[in-house]
Amino acid sequence: MELTIDLNCDMGESFGAWSMGQDTDILPYVTSANIACGFHAGDPSIMRHTVQAALAHGVALGAHPGLPDLVGFGRRRMDITPDAAYDMVVVQVGSLAAVAATQGARLNHVKAHGALYNMASSNQALSQAIAQAVFDVDPGLTLYALAGSLQVQVARDIGLPVAQEVFADRSYQADGSLTPRTQAGAMITDLEIALQQILTMIRQRKVVSVQGTAVAVQPDTLCIHGDQPGAVIFARSIRQALEREGVLVKSVPPVYALNNI
Amino acid sequence: MELTIDLNCDMGESFGAWSMGQDTDILPYVTSANIACGFHAGDPSIMRHTVQAALAHGVALGAHPGLPDLVGFGRRRMDITPDAAYDMVVVQVGSLAAVAATQGARLNHVKAHGALYNMASSNQALSQAIAQAVFDVDPGLTLYALAGSLQVQVARDIGLPVAQEVFADRSYQADGSLTPRTQAGAMITDLEIALQQILTMIRQRKVVSVQGTAVAVQPDTLCIHGDQPGAVIFARSIRQALEREGVLVKSVPPVYALNNI
Amino acid sequence: MELTIDLNCDMGESFGAWSMGQDTDILPYVTSANIACGFHAGDPSIMRHTVQAALAHGVALGAHPGLPDLVGFGRRRMDITPDAAYDMVVVQVGSLAAVAATQGARLNHVKAHGALYNMASSNQALSQAIAQAVFDVDPGLTLYALAGSLQVQVARDIGLPVAQEVFADRSYQADGSLTPRTQAGAMITDLEIALQQILTMIRQRKVVSVQGTAVAVQPDTLCIHGDQPGAVIFARSIRQALEREGVLVKSVPPVYALNNI
Amino acid sequence: MELTIDLNCDMGESFGAWSMGQDTDILPYVTSANIACGFHAGDPSIMRHTVQAALAHGVALGAHPGLPDLVGFGRRRMDITPDAAYDMVVVQVGSLAAVAATQGARLNHVKAHGALYNMASSNQALSQAIAQAVFDVDPGLTLYALAGSLQVQVARDIGLPVAQEVFADRSYQADGSLTPRTQAGAMITDLEIALQQILTMIRQRKVVSVQGTAVAVQPDTLCIHGDQPGAVIFARSIRQALEREGVLVKSVPPVYALNNI
Repeated sequence: MELTIDLNCDMGESFGAWSMGQDTDILPYVTSANIACGFHAGDPSIMRHTVQAALAHGVALGAHPGLPDLVGFGRRRMDITPDAAYDMVVVQVGSLAAVAATQGARLNHVKAHGALYNMASSNQALSQAIAQAVFDVDPGLTLYALAGSLQVQVARDIGLPVAQEVFADRSYQADGSLTPRTQAGAMITDLEIALQQILTMIRQRKVVSVQGTAVAVQPDTLCIHGDQPGAVIFARSIRQALEREGVLVKSVPPVYALNNI
Repeated sequence: MELTIDLNCDMGESFGAWSMGQDTDILPYVTSANIACGFHAGDPSIMRHTVQAALAHGVALGAHPGLPDLVGFGRRRMDITPDAAYDMVVVQVGSLAAVAATQGARLNHVKAHGALYNMASSNQALSQAIAQAVFDVDPGLTLYALAGSLQVQVARDIGLPVAQEVFADRSYQADGSLTPRTQAGAMITDLEIALQQILTMIRQRKVVSVQGTAVAVQPDTLCIHGDQPGAVIFARSIRQALEREGVLVKSVPPVYALNNI
Repeated sequence: MELTIDLNCDMGESFGAWSMGQDTDILPYVTSANIACGFHAGDPSIMRHTVQAALAHGVALGAHPGLPDLVGFGRRRMDITPDAAYDMVVVQVGSLAAVAATQGARLNHVKAHGALYNMASSNQALSQAIAQAVFDVDPGLTLYALAGSLQVQVARDIGLPVAQEVFADRSYQADGSLTPRTQAGAMITDLEIALQQILTMIRQRKVVSVQGTAVAVQPDTLCIHGDQPGAVIFARSIRQALEREGVLVKSVPPVYALNNI
Repeated sequence: MELTIDLNCDMGESFGAWSMGQDTDILPYVTSANIACGFHAGDPSIMRHTVQAALAHGVALGAHPGLPDLVGFGRRRMDITPDAAYDMVVVQVGSLAAVAATQGARLNHVKAHGALYNMASSNQALSQAIAQAVFDVDPGLTLYALAGSLQVQVARDIGLPVAQEVFADRSYQADGSLTPRTQAGAMITDLEIALQQILTMIRQRKVVSVQGTAVAVQPDTLCIHGDQPGAVIFARSIRQALEREGVLVKSVPPVYALNNI
């Protein structure tokens, strides 16, 4: 069986006159773009430019909805209701879907951003609200969710396609969760170790935790961080190494089962 | 030939904890709702509640995109580029389209709000940007535009369906424009006179200007103001009088030529 | 010794074209206004109008800083750092102080709003950040804080004047905390019972908890809710009853020890 | 008589997670910082960090109020009323004054930003509103205004200290206005020519227009653009050349006539 993986990266996180990220330099190496929708970053014009750039590189389009917190970049947890989560995901996905439509394209996936992603990974009501929002807008969209998390199960129960997201540059705990960034050893900065971790995930469907145990994992899509120094080199190195090792790097199969928009 | 007209009203202009308008009381009397999309008013939850209320009354759904100016309610002119206008219309229409989709419905039309509507009525580049944005998101949507304005011609040239909007409670100048609100006699507060004006428009395709001349006009849809004292009484009286006079009150024929969302 | 109390009410919580509250009707009955500063509600023009109205009624001016969450009206908890809390309090207090200065007046106090107030009541680092912010802007300002809460002690330790806030229309637990709104009996809707509660507080420095125990309390200022139906009647009734019972209703003694602005 | 000039630069124009400008690198070469106040750029934490950095370099603090347009960076003209301009300047100046107070410092000046600066240069009512706002907050503040513009005269009439701002890297028209950026020759990119222009201004109180005529000008403060490539080199070169030529580079004399904050 052919080994495959998708490489996804957050993009379009500039805002107005402010620039962020290295979208143009990273696009050649990834296969999915998670594009900010104006709540935590991005604005209508940046959304269009990012969609155009992703399409020019044949990269799959995804909406990247976040909390309504520009100053905090959507990274601060907010005590929102499930209804509010549902509604903010709907409008963000819809706004990017319209931008894609103007470019003759369709959305492929949705990945929640920052605190919204983190809260959904462990909060049942929020994870249901987010998955239902995506499903109700277009049940053919794929939800990118933390591998092994509650969000994965919740989305499946609703009938929404899910891609499980893994990390090459983060270490894992014995329970399958990511080591919190506040702990030593959370980040894997050695490219070789990161590469070994993702290859082990792809070939053996497991990851070795910091405790030394093997944890089962389903690596559908790998998160490429685009906002760090060395991000472009990391992305290119990962991409080249994966291909050298015979892994097919491609986007999660698009499912164009149009709903009722 | 049967005489018909659409009655449209701006709705969903509450924001967060702040309430505005009398949507619930006016919905029984109108046939089209122009729903704010979060830039000048409205938020994701209010957008959904308004869509649900409109659908419950069988009222056609329209997006009501505005300038990004919450404090000014989208009524202050801003020196935006045509590209910025295009992009802000795309995302606003898309966000409401997604809300409609979650309720199993589709958008029928788009009407620009406040200063964006006014600027488009006389600015060639802006009117083109707005019409093109609507067309590119979904060429089956109808653009509501000031009767006789530049926006009407521009939209037609692009191939976008247009509904010409007229007013019962505003007086007209000999050149077909509305009397500016800063001038005496701009507002028609007498319900009988307002009713006569709209009936003359519907039956004779003309309006008598303040100068006494007859001006040709195409009354596809009548604007019902919802945010004034007496708005509900005005809406009900107009609706009842039109029906009494044998005018069929119904939404602009929906055109469901789905684009590529 | 003369019995006194201050009556404070949140004000200036309109925003742009949206109106909220009944400021004009309530101002005759209160002695302190907590004025929103644009983060959760209020805008520059509403801030000025509210300051002018308060001064016209001889009501003491207070800043009412909140979280940067217009859609949520500052009522949703956000995971902000103490530094962020410090900075957002500083700029909000400063902006209202400038508005007051343009009207020849000075601020008297600061009361945190909504989730910021609630978080500060039990979070040591946040309560320190808020008190330090007020102190650093002007050590003569009085901080209004939940009676018996952590915020009271923290502010005192810093050397900031504190007024302890009590409620007539909320029931208390045996530990001195307010009964959560999610529990039955949290709200006291009977005006007579509310009046008895505040009189007992003023005369005996205690409140009877829902468990039947007496809890010591220091009632410096009573919160009058202005955004509920019956708010004006409640405010007037409380004011008249207090005066009838011989309680002097007046603002917390202003302390004009100018800092270094 | 000793020749002097102030070098001012816009600063603190980052926002949330987005960085802009090269404040730290430019601070050694300027004498006045115009600090964004959250409406077009800046947020409460960035305001504090910028104030701290300016103070560390002995640079005078100024508020840099702008239009409420983050996406447009305050560069798009908006049709605001004079009252709205007054109020938005008051709160922005006040918020930065409070930040300064927390650092034991005072504001020295105010300079309007972008479209607000430009509109005020030729609009009588707006220029009066802005000058009156600054005066009412603190009549000891100096207003930085385009040399020779309407704003200079209006501020003087009110009794507000004014510093006339000139440009080394912009060419002038025979009427004393700046050549619009849309015209060729608007920008002076040759450092030597820029240096000659400012030296001529300082020594001879005149500038040679693109038409070849001499125009009288009062150069109190020179605008250093901080957001362009080469900005740091430009700032350092101008500073060194001015000192080499015997010009004393220092901030506009601070006037600490405290108003009533």
